[in-house]
Amino acid sequence: MSDTPDNAVRAFVEGHRATFLDDLAEWLRIPSVSADPGRAEDVRRSAGWLADKLTATGFPTVEVWETAGAPAVFAHWPSGDPGAPTVLVYGHHDVQPAAREDGWHTDPFEPVVTDGRMYARGAADDKGQVFFHTLGVRAHLAATGRTAPAVNLKLLIEGEEESGSPNFPDLVRAHADRLACDTVIVSDTGMWAADTPTVCTGMRGLTDCQIDLYGPDQDIHSGSFGGAVPNPALEAARLAAALHDDDRKVAIPGFYDGVVELTERERELFAELPFDEAGWLRTAHSHAALGEAGHTTLERIWARPTAEVNGIGGGYQGPGGKTIVPAAAQLKLSFRLVAGQDGEAVQKAVRAWVAERLPAGIRHEITFWGATRPCLTPLDHPALQSVVRAMGRAFGQRIRFTREGGSGPAADLQDVLGVPVLFLGISVPSDGWHAPNEKVELDLLMKGVETSAYLWGDLAENWRPAPTA
Amino acid sequence: MSDTPDNAVRAFVEGHRATFLDDLAEWLRIPSVSADPGRAEDVRRSAGWLADKLTATGFPTVEVWETAGAPAVFAHWPSGDPGAPTVLVYGHHDVQPAAREDGWHTDPFEPVVTDGRMYARGAADDKGQVFFHTLGVRAHLAATGRTAPAVNLKLLIEGEEESGSPNFPDLVRAHADRLACDTVIVSDTGMWAADTPTVCTGMRGLTDCQIDLYGPDQDIHSGSFGGAVPNPALEAARLAAALHDDDRKVAIPGFYDGVVELTERERELFAELPFDEAGWLRTAHSHAALGEAGHTTLERIWARPTAEVNGIGGGYQGPGGKTIVPAAAQLKLSFRLVAGQDGEAVQKAVRAWVAERLPAGIRHEITFWGATRPCLTPLDHPALQSVVRAMGRAFGQRIRFTREGGSGPAADLQDVLGVPVLFLGISVPSDGWHAPNEKVELDLLMKGVETSAYLWGDLAENWRPAPTA
Repeated sequence: MSDTPDNAVRAFVEGHRATFLDDLAEWLRIPSVSADPGRAEDVRRSAGWLADKLTATGFPTVEVWETAGAPAVFAHWPSGDPGAPTVLVYGHHDVQPAAREDGWHTDPFEPVVTDGRMYARGAADDKGQVFFHTLGVRAHLAATGRTAPAVNLKLLIEGEEESGSPNFPDLVRAHADRLACDTVIVSDTGMWAADTPTVCTGMRGLTDCQIDLYGPDQDIHSGSFGGAVPNPALEAARLAAALHDDDRKVAIPGFYDGVVELTERERELFAELPFDEAGWLRTAHSHAALGEAGHTTLERIWARPTAEVNGIGGGYQGPGGKTIVPAAAQLKLSFRLVAGQDGEAVQKAVRAWVAERLPAGIRHEITFWGATRPCLTPLDHPALQSVVRAMGRAFGQRIRFTREGGSGPAADLQDVLGVPVLFLGISVPSDGWHAPNEKVELDLLMKGVETSAYLWGDLAENWRPAPTA
Repeated sequence: MSDTPDNAVRAFVEGHRATFLDDLAEWLRIPSVSADPGRAEDVRRSAGWLADKLTATGFPTVEVWETAGAPAVFAHWPSGDPGAPTVLVYGHHDVQPAAREDGWHTDPFEPVVTDGRMYARGAADDKGQVFFHTLGVRAHLAATGRTAPAVNLKLLIEGEEESGSPNFPDLVRAHADRLACDTVIVSDTGMWAADTPTVCTGMRGLTDCQIDLYGPDQDIHSGSFGGAVPNPALEAARLAAALHDDDRKVAIPGFYDGVVELTERERELFAELPFDEAGWLRTAHSHAALGEAGHTTLERIWARPTAEVNGIGGGYQGPGGKTIVPAAAQLKLSFRLVAGQDGEAVQKAVRAWVAERLPAGIRHEITFWGATRPCLTPLDHPALQSVVRAMGRAFGQRIRFTREGGSGPAADLQDVLGVPVLFLGISVPSDGWHAPNEKVELDLLMKGVETSAYLWGDLAENWRPAPTA
């Protein structure tokens, strides 16, 4: 089935496991917290450390790319095969803040291995998942006897993901030529569970806004004037309440235009996952499920567009009562988008809907913060099938499919580079991303190494993308 | 028509005008700001000053009544006529805060008379309107040759009205026997306009509450969970939006139970008032009128019950966006009540309505701050007709009718004493209550004196209330 004898990969990975984990621990000791200006030098040191390691791995081209903020690392290892696909691996080398007093049992920047896990900030998000590709490509070469990977392999490891990737779109646009590829593989996500390996096939998009409503020029007495003039707090509430119909479908005309509906096959695949709603509610800190009628919870969070009230405010919010008609109110809304939806079209639909619903005497302003596109790779895409096969060999199990409800910078790569985005991650929900005592399961991490080792050969063998004009 | 020759009253009032205004100015120099703990001694001094003046006026009984806060002044002058009505005049001797830097052109506690107006904090609200009764009763006696008023005259002048009358209900309950009367005359309101003298026939009641809604136990990620769990900010908005139907009628079942509807005659009387909606909107600082369908603006603010959103808050309200499903949200609602509505029944209706509308997964708490009853005196009440006749003689004009949309402590008197409340005030909207440069129109103030002088005789002559058991 493949030119890579799996046993050779396993032997190589096993033989290099100790050194690999030592190296990862060394990287994790660098507190590359991008949100902390006092750690800027550490983020820079982390980029340098990774660049050196990629050079040692064999990448002939390794560069540290400066941005207006923290630096990214780019690496390129051409395959030598002119028809081979070009793959860009995305990840990040910065980490979330962490301090002992947040509830860590050990120093977050002094990795500790215990019970088959490595505890450290960044162990799973995302240094561990970036790093498995370094041993993966070496295992691929060792097992196949190649001197260069079967695909043209590029890496882009950014340094500001945990700070919202403020400079990432500019970075990608500036280097679009160097980053040109046939697909992006994002290694910054997770799997369903340790015993249920999965591939994520898409992320939702996002556009969010603030709507400011203005009524009277100042707060006025509700006894003297209430009930006879428009109230912006009430109108904000009426807008928010009108976002959904009785079936909790979004009621903004045009909102669903172009939405790629789930196929029956996709719904079946979602339904096959061992979903424990009670457990999920605990993770959500919520006491009931509620959403669009006719859809399961997984469909709602992965594959359906939403309108959410992130914040609402207006009038008096202090202790006790105050009998006023307030002068102003504010709504913060976010809309998750799915494949087929256009962020700008949604913004336009929202603007028209708001303008039409407000009564005379209420002035309004809408500010959209931007739009992140959704991404979705069809189940029959050859590159996705290669990822599934490579994971299947590593895990010795059937690989199932998930999606991600959130939105990420992967969409910028998809947009600027014009290629599909795939997701290859081995982290599990218990890994504690952004939380105290983040860890990575070492067995899963090594499965990541193996998957990476199988993937490049499978891709080159089974996918010959049409050359771009 | 009356036993009081109007010319004799006018002559007496004119003859004592200068001294009366000097005395009022002396009282206004006492900065009796009840909201300012540093002015507590001044409020006490104000009570003492008034007590001395009432004694000098001739009241045989004058007492300073202590409360848990600032003192009130009580006075009683029996008529000697066993069948005469007993009237309790209500007003207050405390004032709103005032400082030059708020925009006053002169020292707020150094009265200045110019262009027929006296400028000072409390000139209209409420010292001027309390004080006109002192000269009024003297003019009544002088013109009729009586040694005691034609009615049993009681005064209760409280000292905490501008601080929300926190101790007033207790005070009234504690002294209910001494305060027993056939009607209360509140001199703490105003007229439509200087050239349109009016009598207010009622105030709306009020009950207000806070509704706290709780969803997830903490703010959660709207990408991971949004669209699949209940959102308390959205549910707060849905509650607020459901307060009214499409006609902006309150949609809470049972809310209108018992409402005394306006009669055709009352609607005609309202419609006769020279109402300038554009001018009213300027006063309301509002840009359009909006309210219950089928009612005019005056009907809406004076005679219709309302549901108002005083405040709403939940989730993220800082700059920019934050993609969360918030853990909690809050609504502050106030309900204005009209005659026939029962505050406790409305509270019960609101509680039932809220409980029924919230989805599983949203926990809620409702706190009502209390309830103030509405008060309304029928147009054909004999005491009201006496007020109208007395004002008509003073102003030489037809007296029209208004109501007051706000709610006040007068309702406590109505409730505890079980008698109708009438309103006799000569202030006009431009007098600047609670605002800088408060003033009273001296000609109107003297009309107040005259009205008071005519009223006691008219009441005694035309109204013989049934003795209470």
